[in-house]
Amino acid sequence: MDIKFYYTPMTSAARVHWALEELGIPYEKVKLDLAAGDQRKPEFLALNPNGKVPLLVAEGRPIFEGLAILLYLGERFGVDKGLFPPPNPERAEAFQWLAWGNVTMGEALQRFLRNTLDRFPEDERNPKAAETAKKDIAAQFVILNDALEGKEYLVGNTFTFADIGIAAAIPFMRRFGIDTSAFANVNAWVDRCTARPAFARIMQG
Amino acid sequence: MDIKFYYTPMTSAARVHWALEELGIPYEKVKLDLAAGDQRKPEFLALNPNGKVPLLVAEGRPIFEGLAILLYLGERFGVDKGLFPPPNPERAEAFQWLAWGNVTMGEALQRFLRNTLDRFPEDERNPKAAETAKKDIAAQFVILNDALEGKEYLVGNTFTFADIGIAAAIPFMRRFGIDTSAFANVNAWVDRCTARPAFARIMQG
Repeated sequence: MDIKFYYTPMTSAARVHWALEELGIPYEKVKLDLAAGDQRKPEFLALNPNGKVPLLVAEGRPIFEGLAILLYLGERFGVDKGLFPPPNPERAEAFQWLAWGNVTMGEALQRFLRNTLDRFPEDERNPKAAETAKKDIAAQFVILNDALEGKEYLVGNTFTFADIGIAAAIPFMRRFGIDTSAFANVNAWVDRCTARPAFARIMQG
Repeated sequence: MDIKFYYTPMTSAARVHWALEELGIPYEKVKLDLAAGDQRKPEFLALNPNGKVPLLVAEGRPIFEGLAILLYLGERFGVDKGLFPPPNPERAEAFQWLAWGNVTMGEALQRFLRNTLDRFPEDERNPKAAETAKKDIAAQFVILNDALEGKEYLVGNTFTFADIGIAAAIPFMRRFGIDTSAFANVNAWVDRCTARPAFARIMQG
C-alpha cells in the first residue's frame, strides 16, 4: 500500500511523523514550504481544502486532521505492533487522551499562541487572555501529571500513540514559553518518550 | 453493561446524548447543574478531573472528552447499528470529520465565544479577534458545504456519528450569532439530521 505523508518539520505534523516512524511502515514524505505558500497551491487544496499540514494519503484517499490520521494509523497498523490498544476498554483510554490533547489542551495552546506570537495581528492579541491561557495550560498539566503518577506511559503502561499525541507538542510548548518545570511526572514522561529513536529521526526534518 | 452519562442540557454534551439516543442502548442520565457548581464537586472531579461535561462511565471506567466518547460508543455499539463505519477506509473518513469538527471548527468556535460572550472577562475580549474567528468559521462552512455537495450525509452517504459530531453544534452556533444562511448544503443537511426522533428527544433535556 502506498502511503504519502505531507508535512512541514516543526509543526503539528510532528506527531504523525513520529507515529509513522514508530510503525516502521514504508511511506513517502512530501515536504511543504509553508512560507512559500505550498499549502495554498491548488493541487494541495484538492487533497486538503483546509490548506494545512499534516495530510496523509493512504488506500487511495486523503485524510486530513492530525488526530484523525493518528487514529487511522493506530487502528490500521498500530495494534499488531503494540502501539495502539485493541478495542476496549483500553482503546477508550487512548481515545480519551488523544482527544484531550488535541481538543482541550490544543485549544488552550492555540489561544496562548494567538495572544502572544508576532505572526498574529497585534490588535487581536491580548496579554490578559494570554495569561488566562497560560493558567489553563498549567491546570491541564496538573491533570496530566496526576494521570502519570506511578506510571511510565498514559495507557496500559506501555508506549502508545496516546503518548505521542500529547508528548509531541510539549517540546514546542516549552519553546514558546510554557514552563513545565513544576510537573515532574510530565517531564520524566516526555524525556522517556522523546528518547525513542523514532523521535530523533523526525527531528532531522 | 451499566452506562452512566453525566451531562447538562444545551452544552457540548448534546452530541453524546444524541449518539446514545440513536444507539437505543440502555443508559442512566445524571444531570449536572453547572450554575450550582456540580462539576466542581469532589465526587465528580474524581471521575473527570477536567470538571466538565460530558462524561461517560462504561465498563466500569470513566471516559472524558466528548469526541473520545463518540469514538468509543461508535466503535463499541455503532457499527452493528450502521451508525459508525466498520474499519477502513470509510472509518478514516469518520475520524477525519469528527476530528475536524472538534479540533478545527471547535477551536474557531471557542475563539469566537471567548471574544463575544459576557461570561468571559470583558478585558480579555477583542472584537477584531471575534471578527477573525467569524471569518475562519465561515471558511470552514465553505469546506463543509463543498463536502456535502451531492450527498445526504458526510460519510458513506448514510447517517453516522460523523454527522452528529458536527451537526449537533450548529443550532447552538446559530443562536450565538453565526450565520449559516449562505451554505445551502449545510442547512439542508442540518435539517435532515435534526429531523431525526433522537434529536427531538435530546432537546427535551
